[in-house]
Amino acid sequence: MQFPRRMKRILTGDRPTGPLHLRHYIGSLKRRVALQHEYEEYVLIADVQALTDHFLHPKVVRDNVIHVALDYLAAGVDPNSTAIVIQSQVPELTELTSYYLNLVTLSRLQRNPTVKEEIRLRRFTGGVPVGFLTYPVSQAADITAFRAHLVPVGEDQLPMIEQTRKIVRLFNRCYRETLVMPDALLSTCPRLPGIDDGQKMSKSLGNTINLSDSSDTVRHKVMRMFTDASRIHAVDPGHMRGNPVFVFHDAFNPDRQKVDELKERYEKGTVGDVEVKHELAVVLNDLLEPMRKRRAAYQQDLAAVWSLLKNGTNRARVTAGETLAAVRKVLHLDYFTDSSGN
Amino acid sequence: MQFPRRMKRILTGDRPTGPLHLRHYIGSLKRRVALQHEYEEYVLIADVQALTDHFLHPKVVRDNVIHVALDYLAAGVDPNSTAIVIQSQVPELTELTSYYLNLVTLSRLQRNPTVKEEIRLRRFTGGVPVGFLTYPVSQAADITAFRAHLVPVGEDQLPMIEQTRKIVRLFNRCYRETLVMPDALLSTCPRLPGIDDGQKMSKSLGNTINLSDSSDTVRHKVMRMFTDASRIHAVDPGHMRGNPVFVFHDAFNPDRQKVDELKERYEKGTVGDVEVKHELAVVLNDLLEPMRKRRAAYQQDLAAVWSLLKNGTNRARVTAGETLAAVRKVLHLDYFTDSSGN
Repeated sequence: MQFPRRMKRILTGDRPTGPLHLRHYIGSLKRRVALQHEYEEYVLIADVQALTDHFLHPKVVRDNVIHVALDYLAAGVDPNSTAIVIQSQVPELTELTSYYLNLVTLSRLQRNPTVKEEIRLRRFTGGVPVGFLTYPVSQAADITAFRAHLVPVGEDQLPMIEQTRKIVRLFNRCYRETLVMPDALLSTCPRLPGIDDGQKMSKSLGNTINLSDSSDTVRHKVMRMFTDASRIHAVDPGHMRGNPVFVFHDAFNPDRQKVDELKERYEKGTVGDVEVKHELAVVLNDLLEPMRKRRAAYQQDLAAVWSLLKNGTNRARVTAGETLAAVRKVLHLDYFTDSSGN
Repeated sequence: MQFPRRMKRILTGDRPTGPLHLRHYIGSLKRRVALQHEYEEYVLIADVQALTDHFLHPKVVRDNVIHVALDYLAAGVDPNSTAIVIQSQVPELTELTSYYLNLVTLSRLQRNPTVKEEIRLRRFTGGVPVGFLTYPVSQAADITAFRAHLVPVGEDQLPMIEQTRKIVRLFNRCYRETLVMPDALLSTCPRLPGIDDGQKMSKSLGNTINLSDSSDTVRHKVMRMFTDASRIHAVDPGHMRGNPVFVFHDAFNPDRQKVDELKERYEKGTVGDVEVKHELAVVLNDLLEPMRKRRAAYQQDLAAVWSLLKNGTNRARVTAGETLAAVRKVLHLDYFTDSSGN
């Protein structure tokens, strides 16, 4: 297979099950925006994957697609450079999945630590849907369909990339060198905690600051953030360790000198939580304000947003179609390509 | 969803992994031919399903597609009435499968008696491929895509139809009444044994009489058939029970009076195995001779056969496409159908 394009490719994406938040931004979105002109980038709104644990609520998934698209555009994803793709509208992906399912054993899927953890979190009543269990195979289809060289992930997602690499290795060995071997592009950012406790920021835990939150909401959420529980008064010496407010300062405050100064004063007991939080709210709103402006502009013309989703999806279908044609060829499934059918 | 057509629909099919034989004929093909003008009939050459246990040998599957098509045509399947369909060329099927996988739990698949038996027979080294474990879900996609009312099966396949019915019930309840509930059309023929022993006729056991066997081969195979092992001489009284030669006579000999007479003489010890077998060979060759003629005619023009496979497949895509559109609609996956995307 030929890869005439000069640029290497990146695939990322999100399940459209709710608003994107600061952990999405710092863990992945920020990097996508930074890399989008160096790489050929595909960003997948993974509605089919969202259905694997939201199959009773397809309308929720549908309604979130446009919100996730707005989150992307607000965050600075450039639709002229990055293809924003609606997964369900690229049927090539399910066909690739069906071939890859033959190359994966049940016990292998059941051993996948990410899948095990995700199943544990979801507490499926009445058993694990097969669609959920097999979603790593569907992810392998996503990654390989776009012939992605790099997939930006957090550490907890590494087993998913390993599963894809295993499928690629086996496919290329069983048939012919066809699929591109992807690499993980590991996030350098530490796990962002939620606002209420030490757990990671997550929609299902209700502890997020969303990219679409208003400045008042951000201020309000920051002011009720968990800090150092052992500190009662502003003059008590405070602790940095596991203190979410300082994790946020480290992640988002561009003024490193100011952060160091605040930490020093905090440990000495010469600055109160309120001032540190107030400073953080300003930093976060400085980050989010341009996003709000971009969002508002796009929201003026949703038809244009749908149109760029359509364009991105069409671009994706071309790439995925090329991959599928190559896969069909080595599987001897290339019927009807000439008049004899052979 | 509207079903403007007057005729009810039948779906049947075979994995293209080898020549079709007399068990296929008596168990299913004969009925397909008999019913093809009363029903709208789709016959699926299930190459994608064949890959679930032949994924290392895609060329074998590919090469068998045309042979199975010739078996159908030879047996009297009328391509002007019945759509002969190559499964892999109807990508709508894999997309439907991906949605149905969310409605089936792993434990349910693992309890399916047909799947358990098939897995046992195959002795997969290194674990069961997920594609194989999930093939009942892919069958549900086949059956529902063509909105089949009836699926002709043997008794051992009943759990597969039950799995499809379960998916249909759940889908229609979770979303909206969309899928047609299929019924099994149970074969009335007893299980046809192989020529060597009491086991069922099966390619993998090497005990078949193929529809494409020459008359010499048929004669030769019949003459070495297993009969009543306790009978040494032609004048010994013989037994009917479990005697394959008489099972074949019952299944294929149109002259019931002659069969009764042979049975009577056999039990009295007044007819030898040779005569009974000779009679059977004549009966079978009478059945197969018109098939050989039709096969020879089609073999003269394989391009025409490919062309009718293409036509059948195109007809199938129209029907499956209608079903998929209805499924996408109730799953709220009908994007880009108008300019707003909503």
